[in-house]
Amino acid sequence: MKPLDALQQSLHKRVLVELKGGRSFRGTLDAFDQHLNLVLSGAEEVMKDQVTPRSGLTLVRGDSIIYISP
Amino acid sequence: MKPLDALQQSLHKRVLVELKGGRSFRGTLDAFDQHLNLVLSGAEEVMKDQVTPRSGLTLVRGDSIIYISP
Amino acid sequence: MKPLDALQQSLHKRVLVELKGGRSFRGTLDAFDQHLNLVLSGAEEVMKDQVTPRSGLTLVRGDSIIYISP
Amino acid sequence: MKPLDALQQSLHKRVLVELKGGRSFRGTLDAFDQHLNLVLSGAEEVMKDQVTPRSGLTLVRGDSIIYISP
Amino acid sequence: MKPLDALQQSLHKRVLVELKGGRSFRGTLDAFDQHLNLVLSGAEEVMKDQVTPRSGLTLVRGDSIIYISP
Amino acid sequence: MKPLDALQQSLHKRVLVELKGGRSFRGTLDAFDQHLNLVLSGAEEVMKDQVTPRSGLTLVRGDSIIYISP
Amino acid sequence: MKPLDALQQSLHKRVLVELKGGRSFRGTLDAFDQHLNLVLSGAEEVMKDQVTPRSGLTLVRGDSIIYISP
Repeated sequence: MKPLDALQQSLHKRVLVELKGGRSFRGTLDAFDQHLNLVLSGAEEVMKDQVTPRSGLTLVRGDSIIYISP
Repeated sequence: MKPLDALQQSLHKRVLVELKGGRSFRGTLDAFDQHLNLVLSGAEEVMKDQVTPRSGLTLVRGDSIIYISP
Repeated sequence: MKPLDALQQSLHKRVLVELKGGRSFRGTLDAFDQHLNLVLSGAEEVMKDQVTPRSGLTLVRGDSIIYISP
Repeated sequence: MKPLDALQQSLHKRVLVELKGGRSFRGTLDAFDQHLNLVLSGAEEVMKDQVTPRSGLTLVRGDSIIYISP
Repeated sequence: MKPLDALQQSLHKRVLVELKGGRSFRGTLDAFDQHLNLVLSGAEEVMKDQVTPRSGLTLVRGDSIIYISP
Repeated sequence: MKPLDALQQSLHKRVLVELKGGRSFRGTLDAFDQHLNLVLSGAEEVMKDQVTPRSGLTLVRGDSIIYISP
Repeated sequence: MKPLDALQQSLHKRVLVELKGGRSFRGTLDAFDQHLNLVLSGAEEVMKDQVTPRSGLTLVRGDSIIYISP
């Protein structure tokens, strides 16, 4: 198994995406590519205990990501 | 679906583009490439609650981008 | 022996993964690739003496990693 | 249209180039390449409200650029 | 002689590895690759005068490294 | 004209090279490559109003450069 | 002449290597490659006016380097 295969198992499920700079997202993983660019639906952005819902599809750039967890 | 296909769905629609360093843009997504370089029209730049309109086409460099949301 | 061969020896064993920004993970190394993207199971995230368990498979992006140790 | 096509439309026109680190340039866009390296003529450098004219051709390195706007 | 040939001469010897962020390792260089990813055995991590022994094989990511010295 | 063609016009002339981190050089541009690695002769390094002459040929790494100006 | 040709002229001579983060080395340039990875012998590390001799061959990673000067 390669890391991106593990991410495949999270497809269409809720994930936590921790980003550099103290920001994170929770949302449903709708797509990803080999750069770890992600598409989340029904996402919530969390920064310093402030939660902001993001409607539609949010594209997160892979190189901002620290880790992705269920 | 790949992440850039999701971005294709936002073409010619208003998007929020969050950048590193506390800066963001709102504007109509007119073009993008595989590096996530974007062209926005009718853009507004937001930094520390200060909003600056940017006339014409604004080219945003992909590697400054954290996420793109409708 | 090349560095990734050494990592192969840690497969399915507990590792400490030290990340940039004062964050670390302890978990079982389930997968890795040539970018040092890792998959950890049964992971615990440690940041400033605060320990957070992460259920399921955690994908850690290789370019955030400083070192990996048993 | 691709982002660099949009930049083509700004050729030989005045642009604002916002750089990382709080620096920006205003000048006439004389050339660019696919890395977004730019050549500006008649440029003014702005940093912390201090404006410095730069005579001749100023070559700005693409990876310092955040955005380019008319 | 190329730089990696010089590193070859340090193979199976004790080295000091200085990392970005004020961290360093001392250990026996067991392996390296062209990215300067290293494997150290019998390593000690030094950060702010605090020394932590790391048992087994420690894989240090090349892009965190500033210099390697005997 | 491409950006590196413009730099060609500055060859063997005095240039100002602004670097990340508040450092700059003034010197005669003797050589450059496509990464914007530069060779300066008769260079002066300026940092925080302190000027240090650098005799011989100074090789400046391209990825530290913000802009090059006459 | 290309920048690396200029560095060739400094081979087996004393150089000053200025690094990011306020660190520098003085030593004899024994080897380099196209990434500007360097090998120095008889090196002295300077950081905040503190000078530390480094015996043997010191391998300095190219991407930490700002400039190299005689």
